[in-house]
Amino acid sequence: MTVVDPIGQLFLHLERRNQPMHVGGLQLFELPDDAPVDYVRRLVERARRFDMVQPPFDRRLVQRLGQSFWRADTGLDLEYHVRHLALPAAGAIRDLLALVSMLHGALLDRARPLWEMYIIEGVADHRFAIYTKFHHAMMDGVSAMRLMHRFVSQTPDAETVHMPWSLPRKRSRQTSGRLADSWQTIQAGARQALALPSVPGALYQSWHDARQDADFTGPMRAPACMLNRPISGSRRVAAQGYSLTRIRAVAARFDATVNDIVLAMCASALRAYLIDNDGLPARPLIALVPMSLHDDKHDATGNKVGAIYTNLATNVADPLDRLSAIQRSVAYWKRRYKTMSPAQIMAFTATLSAPAGLNLLTGAAPRHQAFNVVISNVPGPAEPRYLGEARMVGMYPLSVVLDGQALNISLTSYADAIEFGLIACRRSVPSMQNLLQYLGEALDALDDASSATEPPPPGTM
Amino acid sequence: MTVVDPIGQLFLHLERRNQPMHVGGLQLFELPDDAPVDYVRRLVERARRFDMVQPPFDRRLVQRLGQSFWRADTGLDLEYHVRHLALPAAGAIRDLLALVSMLHGALLDRARPLWEMYIIEGVADHRFAIYTKFHHAMMDGVSAMRLMHRFVSQTPDAETVHMPWSLPRKRSRQTSGRLADSWQTIQAGARQALALPSVPGALYQSWHDARQDADFTGPMRAPACMLNRPISGSRRVAAQGYSLTRIRAVAARFDATVNDIVLAMCASALRAYLIDNDGLPARPLIALVPMSLHDDKHDATGNKVGAIYTNLATNVADPLDRLSAIQRSVAYWKRRYKTMSPAQIMAFTATLSAPAGLNLLTGAAPRHQAFNVVISNVPGPAEPRYLGEARMVGMYPLSVVLDGQALNISLTSYADAIEFGLIACRRSVPSMQNLLQYLGEALDALDDASSATEPPPPGTM
Repeated sequence: MTVVDPIGQLFLHLERRNQPMHVGGLQLFELPDDAPVDYVRRLVERARRFDMVQPPFDRRLVQRLGQSFWRADTGLDLEYHVRHLALPAAGAIRDLLALVSMLHGALLDRARPLWEMYIIEGVADHRFAIYTKFHHAMMDGVSAMRLMHRFVSQTPDAETVHMPWSLPRKRSRQTSGRLADSWQTIQAGARQALALPSVPGALYQSWHDARQDADFTGPMRAPACMLNRPISGSRRVAAQGYSLTRIRAVAARFDATVNDIVLAMCASALRAYLIDNDGLPARPLIALVPMSLHDDKHDATGNKVGAIYTNLATNVADPLDRLSAIQRSVAYWKRRYKTMSPAQIMAFTATLSAPAGLNLLTGAAPRHQAFNVVISNVPGPAEPRYLGEARMVGMYPLSVVLDGQALNISLTSYADAIEFGLIACRRSVPSMQNLLQYLGEALDALDDASSATEPPPPGTM
Repeated sequence: MTVVDPIGQLFLHLERRNQPMHVGGLQLFELPDDAPVDYVRRLVERARRFDMVQPPFDRRLVQRLGQSFWRADTGLDLEYHVRHLALPAAGAIRDLLALVSMLHGALLDRARPLWEMYIIEGVADHRFAIYTKFHHAMMDGVSAMRLMHRFVSQTPDAETVHMPWSLPRKRSRQTSGRLADSWQTIQAGARQALALPSVPGALYQSWHDARQDADFTGPMRAPACMLNRPISGSRRVAAQGYSLTRIRAVAARFDATVNDIVLAMCASALRAYLIDNDGLPARPLIALVPMSLHDDKHDATGNKVGAIYTNLATNVADPLDRLSAIQRSVAYWKRRYKTMSPAQIMAFTATLSAPAGLNLLTGAAPRHQAFNVVISNVPGPAEPRYLGEARMVGMYPLSVVLDGQALNISLTSYADAIEFGLIACRRSVPSMQNLLQYLGEALDALDDASSATEPPPPGTM
């Protein structure tokens, strides 16, 4: 029996019917060519036979003296945790997302280990899907996505099927996964920083200096926005992949990173969506982007993460000007972090994020809107993955929304795609799925603009 | 804006993740012979077009000064309330019940009107299903079942489709539905009785007299039982119909009522289940059976309802002896109620049930196990019903389980069947679906025994 760690306890404490605290992943697979009609049913039965359930998947919550503990569940019931569902005839992706919206909006049963897997047959074009959810108290979003990457195989082989709960535990990987989760690290750091009698004056100085910088975008400057309203208990999930090759090409032409282009796509899509809804603030939206800073070669093995408060320049009409503003905002934060040690960065982001984190997690300090939306990115495998012989053709992270943070954008890379998983309160952020179209249009616009600025290749007119 | 009535407020107050407070109904339909492959999809679209939503289906909860009110939902979204789901290939009833178990275990979204309908395609043998849930604060179980009876039609007609939320409001019927809900009436009565400075001495006298009667089975005498443990948030739903013709024939041979036979089936099934689980108490289980007492001809229009604490005689091995004990127990209560006015019965049952009701609804008085299981019965239509051209071939009520009441048995009559809808905590009452088989075996046993006691008809050997 182990005590639930403080961050986990906070997630349990804040969970409500309208604010479930689980993260999830949606994976899409192609059926093997010769798959029998009961292929998915057999897969479900096979999954349920993986009954050597590894920690933390075998642990349930128990309460002792007002404290939450994890304890092995002696009545673990894989028939409960692994469900077999199906889409209505035709099996459109729209139907899949409607189903996953429903599943992602439902609370886990606290009397059982806090995870569920749904294996869904009948997806159009000879496909099936797996939606998995994990409570945030058990596993953070980054660890969850890494697990989703890890339980599928690098080669197609009918004999090789693993399940997330049956993998041998890789302690070092899991620890690193936990540490690399910038957002949780920031939260923990914020708590530590707040617990100190005083926060070092030098950091305050940095903060005040920073406010003089034209490209600085700190917390407390985010505008009021419809994305920051209280949430209901119903969800809308949207998911789509965009060509990584194309994003890379656009990035190269603008001397930008893939991350810059992804943020520009989000910014353009949010601008279009907010204009549709008569809700575009005069000031730019601020995105909290947890970011690994490992591109500094000298500390590639360190745990250097920072929270980038990205100016999304949603008030700027021209997509290229918007991209430039985003690049300047990201570059500013990278410059600032470059001269700092990992410990300094931790303390710095903790200090900056403290009111934001407190606001997000406790509802305190409601007068300050620290940021408008969280955009998080977990790198994924560059090569195809398989479950048995079934090729994985899509993998989309699904995170958490909160009162005051009614939209979350998560993404991961997989093979030749950047896979977006969007989740929103269905009531506060109506027709959120339109963002998918706007993301595509944003990429088109950048692509067109970059093609127009290039000299025509030889041999074309 | 209207205030939520006190019983409704109590249901809202007691709702937890592990204890959702909604009732539901599962209906099974045959597809018309010429149904196109998208028949159910069209039905879903048609249902979503019934956008003249009648009270109470258009009302959502709002909080004002710590009080709950119903207010018209200006953002009502029928795409949210009416869902389209499907079963995996083959579409076994087992798959349907697994899906409905999941749906019945999930909390409604309090930011919306407290009802949802799921239209489920792909049920084996050319069928589809509709599962509907209503919050108990909005509608009691009896009203919900009456509504499920009422929105289907008496004749097959493709043009005639109604939805529960589109029916013109029948105030008198609804009021009567509410009054006839014995269980809620008892609760209300108990609250009134408890609010009095003293409860009339004559009623106490009746109670004490009653305890001297050998057939008396009152509250506070129920044994400790595995059915009365705390519940988890996961559910098991089971449903099956049994031939009403056959039950009537058995009843006639034993000079019993249909209700007696149904209670005997429940008793035998519970005995078999508890023996399987090494959990049969030495003393008989007590069932709370809300019962209309309208067979007293002189007050057929009155609101004469009573709570019958039926001795299920689960300690008796012989099914005929068990039936006799049940008949005596029911007859005792009918005798007692016969000489009393409706008001007296109300006060009497309120007095008897007060600790039970309080226990059930507030968790107070935990030392007394008032009864082990609720068995409730709502009469349904004797003739077939249709949704458009689709014939309804089954209709099963699904009620609520609570901490300490981990199993509920509800039933209704429809055409030539008694339709059982069972719901249980999946963890406290494992493999509850075995009760369906035991119910059938119990009917077989009574049928065999009654055939054996009859003289052989002429011409047989």
